[in-house]
Amino acid sequence: MAVKLTAPTHLIAVAGIRLGMASAGFKQTERPDLVLIEMAEGSTCAAMFTQNAFCAAPVLVARDHLADNSPRYLLINSGNANAGTGKQGLAATQASCEAVAVQAGCSASQVLPFSTGVIGELLPIDKLQAAVPAAHANLSEEGWLGAASAIMTTDTLAKGISEQCTIDGKTITVTGMAKGSGMIRPNMATMLAYVATDAAVSQTVLDACLNKAVNQSFNRITVDGDTSTNDACVLMASGVAANTVIDNENSEAAVTLFAAVEKVCAFLAQAIIRDGEGATKFITIDVEGGADNSECESVAYTIAHSPLVKTAFFAADPNWGRILAAVGRAGLLNLDLNAITIYLDDVCIVRDGGRAEDYTEAAGQKVMDQEEITVRVVLGRGNASTRVWTCDLSYDYVRINAEYRT
Amino acid sequence: MAVKLTAPTHLIAVAGIRLGMASAGFKQTERPDLVLIEMAEGSTCAAMFTQNAFCAAPVLVARDHLADNSPRYLLINSGNANAGTGKQGLAATQASCEAVAVQAGCSASQVLPFSTGVIGELLPIDKLQAAVPAAHANLSEEGWLGAASAIMTTDTLAKGISEQCTIDGKTITVTGMAKGSGMIRPNMATMLAYVATDAAVSQTVLDACLNKAVNQSFNRITVDGDTSTNDACVLMASGVAANTVIDNENSEAAVTLFAAVEKVCAFLAQAIIRDGEGATKFITIDVEGGADNSECESVAYTIAHSPLVKTAFFAADPNWGRILAAVGRAGLLNLDLNAITIYLDDVCIVRDGGRAEDYTEAAGQKVMDQEEITVRVVLGRGNASTRVWTCDLSYDYVRINAEYRT
Repeated sequence: MAVKLTAPTHLIAVAGIRLGMASAGFKQTERPDLVLIEMAEGSTCAAMFTQNAFCAAPVLVARDHLADNSPRYLLINSGNANAGTGKQGLAATQASCEAVAVQAGCSASQVLPFSTGVIGELLPIDKLQAAVPAAHANLSEEGWLGAASAIMTTDTLAKGISEQCTIDGKTITVTGMAKGSGMIRPNMATMLAYVATDAAVSQTVLDACLNKAVNQSFNRITVDGDTSTNDACVLMASGVAANTVIDNENSEAAVTLFAAVEKVCAFLAQAIIRDGEGATKFITIDVEGGADNSECESVAYTIAHSPLVKTAFFAADPNWGRILAAVGRAGLLNLDLNAITIYLDDVCIVRDGGRAEDYTEAAGQKVMDQEEITVRVVLGRGNASTRVWTCDLSYDYVRINAEYRT
Repeated sequence: MAVKLTAPTHLIAVAGIRLGMASAGFKQTERPDLVLIEMAEGSTCAAMFTQNAFCAAPVLVARDHLADNSPRYLLINSGNANAGTGKQGLAATQASCEAVAVQAGCSASQVLPFSTGVIGELLPIDKLQAAVPAAHANLSEEGWLGAASAIMTTDTLAKGISEQCTIDGKTITVTGMAKGSGMIRPNMATMLAYVATDAAVSQTVLDACLNKAVNQSFNRITVDGDTSTNDACVLMASGVAANTVIDNENSEAAVTLFAAVEKVCAFLAQAIIRDGEGATKFITIDVEGGADNSECESVAYTIAHSPLVKTAFFAADPNWGRILAAVGRAGLLNLDLNAITIYLDDVCIVRDGGRAEDYTEAAGQKVMDQEEITVRVVLGRGNASTRVWTCDLSYDYVRINAEYRT
């Protein structure tokens, strides 16, 4: 059960971006598991990939193709990650790009491949090749909802959102979709996220826009601290809206577009946590008053990854001692306990090195009973701050990950 | 259910070391929760404590007392950690040492206090003071088994062992006990461990011996990555065996004693993992061929802390892709995938950047079905190596930590 999240019922089409689906049969079920995304001629495209050293074959190929050529197609399969598959995996990924090239009449290097699912199984390339024509045949600007479902793995519901803004007097659309539920600790990107706009944007500005948005969204979430081998996030700009090309990242148009893209990315990143494997709580962790961002992040992620803190949230138990112990082991030098205050929403739980004098178990319990909780840690060492989103650790997390693949 | 571990039925008394128990009533049950340990006049004593910045009141006081004076008594309570309790907690700890001093006729600074249990609750000092006379009255060299039970919290069974060796023609005994099951990621010490010998050992050699033993035992284990606020490990030497004082750490006698102490510490450290909260598997992680120890430890602990790897072990699922993904996110610079090999026991699962060609699911499954499994990662970057012990992540881990304290 996702925490306060429902699947989208409508996503606004982005002029110049078409999506098609097919069932290649990578999963046991008949539901679509292959998505093809087409960008209009002249589109720009920015992408960020996992920092995991063991990155999957499609990540290696997509990076190369992005450096070599202007992408026209994205090919995404769920059900198989094509990771840890060596040379055979690379060959399968290249063959998949060629299948699209033949069908669409473009170069294989204009296709960016993406895979998500089980690690270490060879990608059944014959199944994929057989399904490409069907995906190409049903390309449509209305394909977002179907595509958002087709890229799911352990997700319990599809994730997507649209925003609109006005640039040059024109209505600009930003629509995005993402998948992800476990193995979530993105490091420069998330599991898989695709965001598109019809605005005309230069490559430099598009890169900057993606970077900024990802750092405030997908790079601020964690379910289990496990960075995937296949993370990728793509931002496409078709230019079909025919606004004056946005080529200065400080321009008013860029600022307007950035805000819309950030809003879409933040929604999608939070949606991944709300649908985190087994999640029953959505937790925001704010760390303030740090000497620099790095120490704020150390504290925030140490709390976010602590199995004891996460099980206490699952139990709705205001066991603030576990939060305090996590702050204490975050590795900060010369940490002055007496300067630290910790809050659950507005309830102060720790002050002057111990339980806050005015704290009551009833007040703590009231916050813990909520589905959405903010932990705020004020370090009293400087002016840096950071925000991270995470979820609890439940029986269902163990069940899902003990049963997945078996 | 602990993994291949039973409670000790006999522990060898250490001449000069007496232990007494009492029920102070910190827990709901009537079972003893207070332990007093007395060291004979002239004993030496070494101790190591948690590196968590939020260390508990007894840790602060024990460190001070150890620096000031020669300890004669250790006072240990379970059921309450006296951590995050501010000035009141410090005052309670000091009062507990004074209660022992009055009873035993020593100085309060000759008493080292230890607490374990729930964080953030005030220590009911009146209950403790009332129980000290009873603990003192039943001091006995035969008290080890009872004490090993009395210090337990979420442990399912008591942990203790004895070793004997010969020094100067005399039989020397080393007996130890420990408690710990969750919040286990010791950093210079474990939850609580007490090891004693009747050998005569100088302070310098005793310190060196403890350091060496802890680094090969308690500092090599993790259940959940959560370093406790109360970790402590104590090594006592009564000198009653009347051997020539061991004052050179390179002497034959020192080497013999070190070996016995290391054996006791390694057994106790492994016992903590075997009885890890919810553990169904005992996992040894060997990382070899690293450029230095630090990178070996990064890889070993990234695997050991990965919720996905741990749930795969719980499911007995040879999902080696999760191990591979953990190695990949351990933060090693310029990691060459093709140089890495990974084994489950003797079964090679990863070679040349992908699944080993001769790997079969049946072979992997056979290893995963065992209760004890070794993961061996060979990095191919140098000659450093490290070993870490951990356990799986099960439904029961979540149950225990969601129910504990509520």
